Amino acid sequence: MNQRTIRGRSTTATDDQQRAEQKLLDEVLASFGGTPDPRLRQVMRAIVRHLHALIREVRLTEEEWQKAIEFLTAAGNITDDKRQEFVLLSDVLGATMQTIAVNNQAYRGATAATIFGPFFVEGSPQIPLGGDIARGAGGTPCWVEGTVTDTDGNPVPGARIEVWECDEDGYYDVQYGDDRSAGRAHLFTDVDGRYRFWGLKPVPYPIPHDGPVGRMLAATGRSPFRVAHLHFMVSADGLRTLVTHTFVSGDPQLAAGDSVFGVKDSLITEFVDKPAGTPTPDGRDVGDRKWAQARFDIVLAPAGV
Amino acid sequence: MNQRTIRGRSTTATDDQQRAEQKLLDEVLASFGGTPDPRLRQVMRAIVRHLHALIREVRLTEEEWQKAIEFLTAAGNITDDKRQEFVLLSDVLGATMQTIAVNNQAYRGATAATIFGPFFVEGSPQIPLGGDIARGAGGTPCWVEGTVTDTDGNPVPGARIEVWECDEDGYYDVQYGDDRSAGRAHLFTDVDGRYRFWGLKPVPYPIPHDGPVGRMLAATGRSPFRVAHLHFMVSADGLRTLVTHTFVSGDPQLAAGDSVFGVKDSLITEFVDKPAGTPTPDGRDVGDRKWAQARFDIVLAPAGV
Repeated sequence: MNQRTIRGRSTTATDDQQRAEQKLLDEVLASFGGTPDPRLRQVMRAIVRHLHALIREVRLTEEEWQKAIEFLTAAGNITDDKRQEFVLLSDVLGATMQTIAVNNQAYRGATAATIFGPFFVEGSPQIPLGGDIARGAGGTPCWVEGTVTDTDGNPVPGARIEVWECDEDGYYDVQYGDDRSAGRAHLFTDVDGRYRFWGLKPVPYPIPHDGPVGRMLAATGRSPFRVAHLHFMVSADGLRTLVTHTFVSGDPQLAAGDSVFGVKDSLITEFVDKPAGTPTPDGRDVGDRKWAQARFDIVLAPAGV
Repeated sequence: MNQRTIRGRSTTATDDQQRAEQKLLDEVLASFGGTPDPRLRQVMRAIVRHLHALIREVRLTEEEWQKAIEFLTAAGNITDDKRQEFVLLSDVLGATMQTIAVNNQAYRGATAATIFGPFFVEGSPQIPLGGDIARGAGGTPCWVEGTVTDTDGNPVPGARIEVWECDEDGYYDVQYGDDRSAGRAHLFTDVDGRYRFWGLKPVPYPIPHDGPVGRMLAATGRSPFRVAHLHFMVSADGLRTLVTHTFVSGDPQLAAGDSVFGVKDSLITEFVDKPAGTPTPDGRDVGDRKWAQARFDIVLAPAGV
């Protein structure tokens, strides 16, 4: 006999009760026995087992079940082609990062993968090496450079690097809803596997938190903020495509925690602040503004590992 | 080291990998540590644990994660004030019935609870004992009678009985979208705890299956049909409100399985078919139609068990 107390109500799950609950679970599992695709059968049965285990473990009340239905309904209502509340939900529960972890196992010295996020846009403009991805987005100019190598240390020439980031107000171009394109571009490494570009020093920003996921974060005392970061997607023939960020060392949000659990220690990079008037690496005149500098070296795993 | 093979791809979750996945899970669990309400903290952490266990167990691919997001998005799109795809999803995964099982433990000889369903309507008309709930809905007339008692066998006079059911085409009144009210009513037991009414002999019908849940049932080889049933909700002072069905013994769908797992053996009732011309229990003239007869005795548990 298994005694639990929930909100002051004592719920006794007798042996008979446990058997009845298990019988129901077995019936549901059996119903998927005719699934033609073995992988779908495996996944559906695992979903059922874990879902029933959750309900039985917490002794979910009917009122709580109703609240869960209302939560999912509200998430569905706010989701459209610009807002994806189910992805946000997956993100803040760490499910997105766990999926990434499962599918991007550490391989020797390869750079760690992290969350893709909802703000990547296909068809970004190409810039030359040393070009500027800001393209009108406001913020502190930031020189970013590094190398792309394989795990044997060989440079990877011609690797395609997509970079994207928010502006100083914490918004990506697509969030303005006016078709602007800014704070994103792609470039290719040179013959020595080197890259360099001007961007903006990343700032922390909140994930969209005016919906049910934001209300859940508030109810659980969690911050919607992400640690300041710059997005990278790096691809080259014969190598595993890397989706990652580099995070700003010393960002105050690091202590509070990233709302989507994207931070890995190995991805934290020093962004060195330079006073106004300091000469820039490529001689660019940034006027009387301060600027910043970062180095982020990227190591790609072989494809298929 | 834990070796798995997925769709021909060998995925090796090394000890380092297992530790990295566990570290991420621990980080997510810790993020809920500041939840003021202890029950919410408990439930959120349990959701996170089971969700991560699922992802890690099946080694969910990023494509499968994307499909799951698309499934939830489609469920959100089709859900409105008349259609509730998330309830259907909970139903076909057995989550609704498991929640009911957890909250309505067997108590001595009390009648078993089952699923509430989406078709109950507040404010049904009252009928006298022996009245007709069909009220225009088409089907085979069916005389239903029984008693309401407590678990000590005492009759419960004045118990409120809500009954509702679909018509011979498998549709509830609310599904026609024309504000009709038919196939539903409420009545009260007499001084001896007895009730009797005319309804329709229940027929099997599919749950709405033109949406993502229906596509999931098709992909997994499952039937969307429910076993023929008549809905009851019975309430009386000092007794636990009972939400249940009575199911038609011999219904061919019983072998195939109820799509929402609502059937319990104790709720299967004999509906006796009567040839046209057979005298009815109350002398009602049903014309040259066949009719049916069923007896469903109801036992209510005490409130608070």
